[in-house]
Amino acid sequence: MHKSLRKRIYIIIFEADTPAGKAFDVALLWAIVISVLAVILESVKSLNEHYGQLFKIVEWVLTIGFSIEFILRLYVSETPRKYAFSFYGIIDLLAVLPAYISLVFTGTQYLLIIRALRLLRVFRILKLGRFVGEGEQLARALKASRHKITVFLGSVLTVVMITGTAMYMIEGGENGFTSIPVSMYWAIVTLTTVGYGDIAPQTVIGQSLASFIMIMGYAIIAVPTGIVTAELTKDNAERKKVKCPNCHQTGHEAIAHYCKFCGTALILPDEK
Amino acid sequence: MHKSLRKRIYIIIFEADTPAGKAFDVALLWAIVISVLAVILESVKSLNEHYGQLFKIVEWVLTIGFSIEFILRLYVSETPRKYAFSFYGIIDLLAVLPAYISLVFTGTQYLLIIRALRLLRVFRILKLGRFVGEGEQLARALKASRHKITVFLGSVLTVVMITGTAMYMIEGGENGFTSIPVSMYWAIVTLTTVGYGDIAPQTVIGQSLASFIMIMGYAIIAVPTGIVTAELTKDNAERKKVKCPNCHQTGHEAIAHYCKFCGTALILPDEK
Amino acid sequence: MHKSLRKRIYIIIFEADTPAGKAFDVALLWAIVISVLAVILESVKSLNEHYGQLFKIVEWVLTIGFSIEFILRLYVSETPRKYAFSFYGIIDLLAVLPAYISLVFTGTQYLLIIRALRLLRVFRILKLGRFVGEGEQLARALKASRHKITVFLGSVLTVVMITGTAMYMIEGGENGFTSIPVSMYWAIVTLTTVGYGDIAPQTVIGQSLASFIMIMGYAIIAVPTGIVTAELTKDNAERKKVKCPNCHQTGHEAIAHYCKFCGTALILPDEK
Amino acid sequence: MHKSLRKRIYIIIFEADTPAGKAFDVALLWAIVISVLAVILESVKSLNEHYGQLFKIVEWVLTIGFSIEFILRLYVSETPRKYAFSFYGIIDLLAVLPAYISLVFTGTQYLLIIRALRLLRVFRILKLGRFVGEGEQLARALKASRHKITVFLGSVLTVVMITGTAMYMIEGGENGFTSIPVSMYWAIVTLTTVGYGDIAPQTVIGQSLASFIMIMGYAIIAVPTGIVTAELTKDNAERKKVKCPNCHQTGHEAIAHYCKFCGTALILPDEK
Repeated sequence: MHKSLRKRIYIIIFEADTPAGKAFDVALLWAIVISVLAVILESVKSLNEHYGQLFKIVEWVLTIGFSIEFILRLYVSETPRKYAFSFYGIIDLLAVLPAYISLVFTGTQYLLIIRALRLLRVFRILKLGRFVGEGEQLARALKASRHKITVFLGSVLTVVMITGTAMYMIEGGENGFTSIPVSMYWAIVTLTTVGYGDIAPQTVIGQSLASFIMIMGYAIIAVPTGIVTAELTKDNAERKKVKCPNCHQTGHEAIAHYCKFCGTALILPDEK
Repeated sequence: MHKSLRKRIYIIIFEADTPAGKAFDVALLWAIVISVLAVILESVKSLNEHYGQLFKIVEWVLTIGFSIEFILRLYVSETPRKYAFSFYGIIDLLAVLPAYISLVFTGTQYLLIIRALRLLRVFRILKLGRFVGEGEQLARALKASRHKITVFLGSVLTVVMITGTAMYMIEGGENGFTSIPVSMYWAIVTLTTVGYGDIAPQTVIGQSLASFIMIMGYAIIAVPTGIVTAELTKDNAERKKVKCPNCHQTGHEAIAHYCKFCGTALILPDEK
Repeated sequence: MHKSLRKRIYIIIFEADTPAGKAFDVALLWAIVISVLAVILESVKSLNEHYGQLFKIVEWVLTIGFSIEFILRLYVSETPRKYAFSFYGIIDLLAVLPAYISLVFTGTQYLLIIRALRLLRVFRILKLGRFVGEGEQLARALKASRHKITVFLGSVLTVVMITGTAMYMIEGGENGFTSIPVSMYWAIVTLTTVGYGDIAPQTVIGQSLASFIMIMGYAIIAVPTGIVTAELTKDNAERKKVKCPNCHQTGHEAIAHYCKFCGTALILPDEK
Repeated sequence: MHKSLRKRIYIIIFEADTPAGKAFDVALLWAIVISVLAVILESVKSLNEHYGQLFKIVEWVLTIGFSIEFILRLYVSETPRKYAFSFYGIIDLLAVLPAYISLVFTGTQYLLIIRALRLLRVFRILKLGRFVGEGEQLARALKASRHKITVFLGSVLTVVMITGTAMYMIEGGENGFTSIPVSMYWAIVTLTTVGYGDIAPQTVIGQSLASFIMIMGYAIIAVPTGIVTAELTKDNAERKKVKCPNCHQTGHEAIAHYCKFCGTALILPDEK
């Protein structure tokens, strides 16, 4: 029957509990990885000269495969419009669009970045694995500390702005600090301890200010770490105290959604 | 009536609970961001050549606006002298002074840094937002660990001083270590893992000592992080235990100032 | 008696509780350190020219010693096949094989890396020291956070891939971003805050994107730290709560395997 | 009386509870800072040319002052021999010896590093301040995690050794990896995220291995931080639980040595 076929396709491509669904996910994972590798390797000149034809073939075979998959997803989902405008729907469309556009227009090298976005599709597949709980806990810790991180980033940007202006005036254009934006770029490179060395202070005052900024940055780097750690520790402790609504037992893991003693869904503190 | 107008202006520019007060804050935020952007972009040569006139106009319009704001603040505050000598009062004055000084004196490019200080005014506005609690908790954690951080920075400076002297003697001027201050600058660049590479050891002994310092620095960077994290974690735990003086319930957030069950002001451990 | 000799050799080379066993371990430790130092110093041209002959002699004396040790280990272990295919058995074999192979074939400089693997043998000896408990706790914390770290590394790789592609298109080959793999290498060098500076963005857009990535990386570096710390803290707390099955006392150290009050073996949470 | 004078001098130079003792400490602190600054600034060529004479005078005045202080310390301490061979006794002697040696021998520039050690004398003075408790807690946390840090550093050194050998073979001398020690230096510069860029991989395989090492180092840096943080957190928690032997109250600060309610000396867990 028609409906049953649609239903069966839905289970295969949207779910991962059946053997067919799992096999589809694994195949899709490989297709995505291969297509992304093709994008990466195509950019290497020597490889493109030798295997350019192969990359084109791989690209088109996978594009047609992804197109069929996209149409099937649209066909089987109950609300095709909702799917098409969802995050993954747009990513799925963007995975196939650049290839077709490059047929019509030439010089569309800038669509490369869109093809690289295919990698985001991997997350849909991973979502079905055992990483959900862990990812959720990380996301929760980051979300809980978003205000603190905003305050922190705001302070960092102010320091960058004021340091950048000061270094522009102290060092000046002859030492590479040609404008305030460039000086701010240097300040970010220094505060984050990346330190390329393409721009480096040469005057005594400049080096003193830079030293001060670095030692400050040394202490500052402690702050976001402290924030996230305190959040993760708190999270662990809070989940431990969650009481099962059925058997009233505690001691559940930070990533648990169900009571480990009786299987009842837990009511988590951030859902209350 | 005169007094009531003064009061109404006070509420608009010093508070943020009324629609007018909020609108004023948002407008001020934009004015500050635009004036700071003008300072930054004016320093880019190519932009200054094309839009120099525009930057001058923006600068003067905003300076006049900030001047009016400053005079109004002086006028409406109950103790104008106290406001004028407060942190924000000085920042507000510094935000307008450079422009007027540049009218009288020429070659006052060094006033640029003072104009960049305008960014500090943003904090006054943010103070009124939801970031207060978070900022306060961070500040409290940093304040509580200030002695530990002092001990830590003192030790780092001693290591920097001794390493700098040693490298100056080992590597000498021909490898870039031209004096002890320069060697100490190198030591700071290395210990903080910034690593510009403008000065780098060339001799075997110098590279060995540098390796030792780096691995030590690797372990040392753990210390300020540990300090701040332990403080934030303790802070979270301590607030949890604060008992409401009215309803005697506990479990309040680290950023709470009022009991979440009955609204009574909490007596916090660091205020007792 | 034959069996008793075998048994005695077993105790000497596999265990470390007897004086002879301890002496053997110390001697082996020195032999390994000297053989590894020989590999390292042989690669320095000036040293090889002067002491090349000495390095060869040291290498052969130690290789013959390690060979005898390997044969003895095979001889005394109850299941020689199991030992030969165990991790340490393979390392022990690899410690002596390169020297013999270099007798037969010439130009086998690539066996150097295998000789460097000898250092791994040190771990077998350290295993017998007091570092077991500590190492175990660290390994447990890392193991417990492996899913979170996988999610984290996956996200980092996605960021690297997308940033690399973007920078390849923005900066292009003339600024050193000659291909996507090279751009991804730059992205890793930047995100990890290593920052060699051999490749650095030159355009305004490139520097802006780089600044954004660095500040993001600044916040991101907090995540793995938070994960491991939360795990170690939890571990400490959980061990504290373990109740001795004999005397029912708690408060044991995180590295304890036996009750510190009555000596009974503890049943640890991750073994239950 | 003779004895009473000796006692009074002892109180002034060894203790800090009397006004005279405090004044002596402050004067000594300034003398040390000035003598260290003289060492630093003397190494700057342009300053030495202009103020060389001044530096010499300052150096000799302070050396004579430190000599008198050293003799006084010897004279007033009850066990002069014990003081002379204590850590601070040796530092005090080293603070004056280089100047006298330079009178007898010429070309003793290498005594510079010994003069820099004077900075260590600052710690004696700080010991008397309010930083004792904080410093002690940090030292305790570091001491408690010394085994874990040893295991960690051992693992890092093994990774450095194996990576260094691999890069030496992959990149070779033409790309700057001229010997295994140099490659190991590069590996340390990379793993610690310092990244000078004086040596950087040029081949595709080398860059891939370097990327792998960097991402690993990114995760590895989390470990020492986690160790110290967990230790500091535990320390905070344990001190909280210490019960006063007199009034039986708990809740003492991590740095407390005496009960904050009745002043009785606390029996700390690590002293039991």
